[in-house]
Amino acid sequence: MDSNLHELFLDELAGILDAEQQLTIALPKMAKAARSDELTAAFDSHLAETEYQITRIEQVFASLDAPVKSKECKAMKGLLEEGEELMVEMKGSSALDAVLIAAAQKVEHYEIASYGTLCAWAEMMAHDEAYDLLNATLEEEKAADEMLTSIAEDTVNEAGD
Amino acid sequence: MDSNLHELFLDELAGILDAEQQLTIALPKMAKAARSDELTAAFDSHLAETEYQITRIEQVFASLDAPVKSKECKAMKGLLEEGEELMVEMKGSSALDAVLIAAAQKVEHYEIASYGTLCAWAEMMAHDEAYDLLNATLEEEKAADEMLTSIAEDTVNEAGD
Repeated sequence: MDSNLHELFLDELAGILDAEQQLTIALPKMAKAARSDELTAAFDSHLAETEYQITRIEQVFASLDAPVKSKECKAMKGLLEEGEELMVEMKGSSALDAVLIAAAQKVEHYEIASYGTLCAWAEMMAHDEAYDLLNATLEEEKAADEMLTSIAEDTVNEAGD
Repeated sequence: MDSNLHELFLDELAGILDAEQQLTIALPKMAKAARSDELTAAFDSHLAETEYQITRIEQVFASLDAPVKSKECKAMKGLLEEGEELMVEMKGSSALDAVLIAAAQKVEHYEIASYGTLCAWAEMMAHDEAYDLLNATLEEEKAADEMLTSIAEDTVNEAGD
């Protein structure tokens, strides 16, 4: 069981590494597209956070004496493609920020689920250092989701033009 | 703004309808693959719930006098493809249930984000009936995610073979 779960853990880690890497490409586009300064600032700050989360993933691999591995994350690809299509469709619309926030919250929830799983597995295998690193990121993703919820009301309500 | 947000709302609704439809095809396979009876039962019961949630989405369209529309949800497609690949890879492994739970929780979180967005938009546009229907589903998705978390510990811990 443990060796299976260990392989699975490394596989999930490789997937979330690719997902975060995809996100570092998408976030600057989202920041540029956003109409409200508050949302642009939130995406910019989440980009810096995401870059640091990538470093943490590398530290998790190192803590397990495993080589850093990245594996295409189809789910994140689908999420970002869907978001990008809507961004193009809604270009110039006052509801564009609502689209961006919705897309970003789907991404955050994907990450919350993925880091939640990784934390649970790290705990089961008593990988304490990995758990601490992953849990720090999990808390950041939850906070990012909450911040988007609070921006959503301001942004969408202000978009009365 | 309102007409834009209204279009966006109908578009998101069309996406989640397709996502739920995709899920009704995936869940029976997941129920069949699960090793623990508890997990099989959870997937079976979530299938029934999902079918009812589809009916609710149709009711939301009706409450807005809009025709029922479905639009391919690429994000759900990516999530399910990723889960299916892992299912094949881990076939026969004692960690298979852990994979199934992880995949299902990603699906639940996608739905939580999507219904969360739909509820927020319904509230902003004062679509009370739509809000009530969507919020009922949102609560079910959250409960499904919590149930999976509680099954995860039993299942994975028991898989000592």
